[in-house]
Amino acid sequence: MNVIVRGRTQHFRTVAFNRARNAVLLIEQRLLPHEFKIVATKNFHETAGAITDMVVRGAGAIGATAAYGLAQGALAFRGNDLKKFSRHVETVYQTLKAARPTAVDPVNAMNDVRAVMRTGQTVEEQQSLALAAAEEFANEDVRHCEEIGKHGAKLIRNGMKILTHCNAGWLAFVDIGTATAPMYAAQAQGKKFHVFCDETRPRSQGATLTAWELAQQKISHQIIADNAAGHLMQRGEIDLVIVGSDRTLGRTGEVTNKIGTYTKAVLAARHKIPFYVAIPLSTIDWNLKRGFDIPIEERHESEVLGSWGVAERLKAEGRRLKDGKRIYVRVANPTSGARNPGFDVTPPELITGIITPVGIFKPKKLWEQRHRLGYAD
Amino acid sequence: MNVIVRGRTQHFRTVAFNRARNAVLLIEQRLLPHEFKIVATKNFHETAGAITDMVVRGAGAIGATAAYGLAQGALAFRGNDLKKFSRHVETVYQTLKAARPTAVDPVNAMNDVRAVMRTGQTVEEQQSLALAAAEEFANEDVRHCEEIGKHGAKLIRNGMKILTHCNAGWLAFVDIGTATAPMYAAQAQGKKFHVFCDETRPRSQGATLTAWELAQQKISHQIIADNAAGHLMQRGEIDLVIVGSDRTLGRTGEVTNKIGTYTKAVLAARHKIPFYVAIPLSTIDWNLKRGFDIPIEERHESEVLGSWGVAERLKAEGRRLKDGKRIYVRVANPTSGARNPGFDVTPPELITGIITPVGIFKPKKLWEQRHRLGYAD
Repeated sequence: MNVIVRGRTQHFRTVAFNRARNAVLLIEQRLLPHEFKIVATKNFHETAGAITDMVVRGAGAIGATAAYGLAQGALAFRGNDLKKFSRHVETVYQTLKAARPTAVDPVNAMNDVRAVMRTGQTVEEQQSLALAAAEEFANEDVRHCEEIGKHGAKLIRNGMKILTHCNAGWLAFVDIGTATAPMYAAQAQGKKFHVFCDETRPRSQGATLTAWELAQQKISHQIIADNAAGHLMQRGEIDLVIVGSDRTLGRTGEVTNKIGTYTKAVLAARHKIPFYVAIPLSTIDWNLKRGFDIPIEERHESEVLGSWGVAERLKAEGRRLKDGKRIYVRVANPTSGARNPGFDVTPPELITGIITPVGIFKPKKLWEQRHRLGYAD
Repeated sequence: MNVIVRGRTQHFRTVAFNRARNAVLLIEQRLLPHEFKIVATKNFHETAGAITDMVVRGAGAIGATAAYGLAQGALAFRGNDLKKFSRHVETVYQTLKAARPTAVDPVNAMNDVRAVMRTGQTVEEQQSLALAAAEEFANEDVRHCEEIGKHGAKLIRNGMKILTHCNAGWLAFVDIGTATAPMYAAQAQGKKFHVFCDETRPRSQGATLTAWELAQQKISHQIIADNAAGHLMQRGEIDLVIVGSDRTLGRTGEVTNKIGTYTKAVLAARHKIPFYVAIPLSTIDWNLKRGFDIPIEERHESEVLGSWGVAERLKAEGRRLKDGKRIYVRVANPTSGARNPGFDVTPPELITGIITPVGIFKPKKLWEQRHRLGYAD
């Protein structure tokens, strides 16, 4: 999508590849929204490090990064010995897999790339196939988001006010994003609308990433405290809610997403405001039978007890901070602790529809539509 | 209530008076929760300044501060000329009134004090009466909170988990508080329970003030992001909600309170969790006919776009900050703005009961009970 760099609008993907330099190009997301920078990883070790250190985050984005990283590692091999090459590729694979051990996207992406690669007869052929497969993985991620946008844009009418929670935008994918895809598509169709971004405490991805995305794209928007959406709904100031999902249960239609999503769904239902969830097919879990069994990650309490931000006063005073641009401030009482569940589960009866690359479905109809949605018996 | 000062538990009121020094003693609330300090205002100008600068905040607390400030000003007068004295008292009154021009509590409190004072025949007599009336105003605030605690404590059973929002604790009153009063009373009765404090963005009064109060009082508690309560309710981890109120409509039972209160009431209703509002009688508005007409203050967007806190890293590095202990950090995207409504309105059907000093009432029964609740025809 667009990024405004020194006043000029340029197009970037979250993850891309430079063949000449054999480098994976990543938007350094840890500096956003305060600084925009592209990093080029010099080798697969640096690519794995970028995944580990959260230079890049988001399901689609880390999948594509791992796919490109595998190709990058393969392309760095010198020689014709296919056996040695395969051993080298295995090392690359394991290194990238270990970069974020609990994430499934890098593994799925690399398995795709490796399957294609292995159809090659020579080292050189396998190297070319690896890069082609990685490019295809990234392009498919973009196409899926475009399809979500195409279906979702129909929900957006001129003058609407839309609420979104957390960041399911293009920074979490290769491009376009999921929850944001209908907005970008509607904008391209010339529709005018306004977006309220929940700040999304405790990590504030709405205030930082989603707001940054919308600002680059010149979409009218405002950040609100997570507490404010109920009041705005009461006063008729929200017409539509679109969020993303980390895991959607194909058998029940339950949606796991960032903590606070459930609350917004409850409020939307009370006010009869349509509540949609935009998802890529890869996040549908066809196995699990009840949402209650989804393990909810309990994150570190420091996230709740404070905030990361830029100390503008210190900057104005010309002080240098060892932590870089952002510093952590402790907001809460120093002798109190916190609970910090990272996700919650929204039941299907609160969800108007699930926006997928192949269409919009009632959450309880996912199972019925499972073959169109990529379920393999 | 209690404050732990260098390991020792001592009792303090939020607002008190030192006759020997003719000083109003205030807990410097702007330093909390990071530092505990009592300030003594030397004269009524300083007392007015403390109200303006938010050294003291909260309905009951600023009422008592103004009452004591009026007595302080009266006591500082030297001489026997009753006319000159009255002119001087008028100046004191106007100065304190102007300290927070939109607040009604200081004015009501000072009118009480002045009415009592004027029954005196001499300057000296009026001076004594002013101080006695101010003390009585403060003591009555404490008694009312004690009564709220007495009624509300019946709702708390052993092992309960209680949610509260924002700060309606003793720091907002002379002592004890309203939403916290049932907790303090239940603790005195030997009951064990756990409190979840909503951090209450954007100003974080839950994470700072309520958590500090509960820590001083050694009540088991944890801070949660405002997004987390829905999930905890879903998992059966909240048994009771108690909040305060800035304004309750006596005719309809609608409750105005800090932004986010309405959301918690909607969630509690869905999960059939009792939702109570604790209020002093002075906050009942007997005139207004619908909650929709309550003006909702739109506050500065900087509150939503960032946070105030202590930069522990900078402290550890021994750096001195011009702003004092806390600094403001900008969290949000620098090119985005915010909406920041300060309050919301909760309708009576979501409220299980209103806890008042004279008993607990269904919100729609307030009007029926108006004479017990201090309504003057």
